[in-house]
Amino acid sequence: MSTTFENATTQSVDVNGTKFVFREVGRKGGTPVVLLHHLTAVLEDWDPRIVDGLAGKHHVIAFDNRGVGGSGGSTPKTVEEMARDAATFIAALGFSKVDLLGFSLGGFVAQLIAQQQPGLVRKIVLAGTGPAGGEGIANVGAVLQDAFGKAGATNKHPKQFLFFTQTKNGQAAAEDFLRRLKERTKDLDTPVSNETIQAQIAAIGAWGQGDATALGTVQHPVLVVNGDDDVMVPSFNSFELARRLPNAQLSIFPDAGHGGIFQYHAAFVQQTLAFLEQ
Amino acid sequence: MSTTFENATTQSVDVNGTKFVFREVGRKGGTPVVLLHHLTAVLEDWDPRIVDGLAGKHHVIAFDNRGVGGSGGSTPKTVEEMARDAATFIAALGFSKVDLLGFSLGGFVAQLIAQQQPGLVRKIVLAGTGPAGGEGIANVGAVLQDAFGKAGATNKHPKQFLFFTQTKNGQAAAEDFLRRLKERTKDLDTPVSNETIQAQIAAIGAWGQGDATALGTVQHPVLVVNGDDDVMVPSFNSFELARRLPNAQLSIFPDAGHGGIFQYHAAFVQQTLAFLEQ
Repeated sequence: MSTTFENATTQSVDVNGTKFVFREVGRKGGTPVVLLHHLTAVLEDWDPRIVDGLAGKHHVIAFDNRGVGGSGGSTPKTVEEMARDAATFIAALGFSKVDLLGFSLGGFVAQLIAQQQPGLVRKIVLAGTGPAGGEGIANVGAVLQDAFGKAGATNKHPKQFLFFTQTKNGQAAAEDFLRRLKERTKDLDTPVSNETIQAQIAAIGAWGQGDATALGTVQHPVLVVNGDDDVMVPSFNSFELARRLPNAQLSIFPDAGHGGIFQYHAAFVQQTLAFLEQ
Repeated sequence: MSTTFENATTQSVDVNGTKFVFREVGRKGGTPVVLLHHLTAVLEDWDPRIVDGLAGKHHVIAFDNRGVGGSGGSTPKTVEEMARDAATFIAALGFSKVDLLGFSLGGFVAQLIAQQQPGLVRKIVLAGTGPAGGEGIANVGAVLQDAFGKAGATNKHPKQFLFFTQTKNGQAAAEDFLRRLKERTKDLDTPVSNETIQAQIAAIGAWGQGDATALGTVQHPVLVVNGDDDVMVPSFNSFELARRLPNAQLSIFPDAGHGGIFQYHAAFVQQTLAFLEQ
């Protein structure tokens, strides 16, 4: 049986005395793709179509950063520390060069890994994310609260409001996505704790007040991707990333929100594979 | 034999005493899609994959506006007059409501038809284009001159510089596109005249100095599409269009230029069909 994200074993590695959990799919060798995840996310929140799609050509690793889900320790309150933790995890797995796919908060983390340890990174995909100080990013707490309120009142999942447009197409894509996240039924990850969510929101708030000038020094090839109507990290931030990064490409999907890469998972996988192979 | 753009007969219609040439594909009925073309373009410059792809679901009409290619009369020096001419042509064919697909200069024309005669238009696709006064649009003469110089020096087609990125993927897409434009070998259109090119450049220059405030009144659903690296109508203009238009979606293709819809013709057709059917 070939391993897919649905049946990949949850493994762990000791990172300077703290247990980090991860799963890997795809044939080992070449430059691995390390996935960096969003606010509240654990391993169960990755779209299996994206993980398996990339694993058709690459060794792909999803993990929980410090304090998140099944990993030990406490979640730090800054993106800078999250980036250091992620780089230490990557080193603990024995990798000296990786590609990064960062989604939302994970995209902030990816930007800082590239700046803190440029030699560790080959290429970067930044999805549903934005530069430090980017328009609207500091409002994430209010946006989240609003979505949780609407979700409670309508018996829907918050991601139906946060990740997808409210159009017919957007909501159909939301239902498909939420169904895909439930394909795996065994060996499930631990949900994120309230302490972690609070630390992550603090980190995002500080990022939203930050300065993006240093992006001009990032020489890595970068693919920036988002939906055209992102209410969490407004889509304009993707244009800003592509303008500031010296070596960036931009992909925007129509009638799609923060979770545009999940709605257009087939196109996203195709674009990402092309980008990684250029 | 079902009609494709390759074998569609070139027809003509009398528009207030002037002959306009056109070709049509797809089953008649429903809201027709009228294609509005770019600087220097005649009927032979439409990508047959796009015309035939849209014609799978819609009645599609490509035409030469006044003074262009096989059509009679003189090309006007303003986008306003081009829009009036196009609307008069549409009325001459007997249509009271159409969808518009405007590429580059054709996108400027589409924006003004929607403002001059809002009731004539149902939905609009704006590709490789921008708002009046948009960043870099007034430079088109210099960009064109530069590309013609490079093309002459390297024995390449100017569109290899103007429509596509200079990457391996971009140039491969350019060659595929130029090959598709030669699929039709009979009943070819007349090339555009120097007088027409000069009038079109004057119109584009004036558009580049214009004001886009009125876009906020355009209530039609609009799909805005471009490559991420357009040197003719810089891609930022697509973001501006999507921001200013009250009912717009945005699609940006990575590692693609002004001709992004030709490079990603399959994805573009899929997105446009979805948009027209929403």
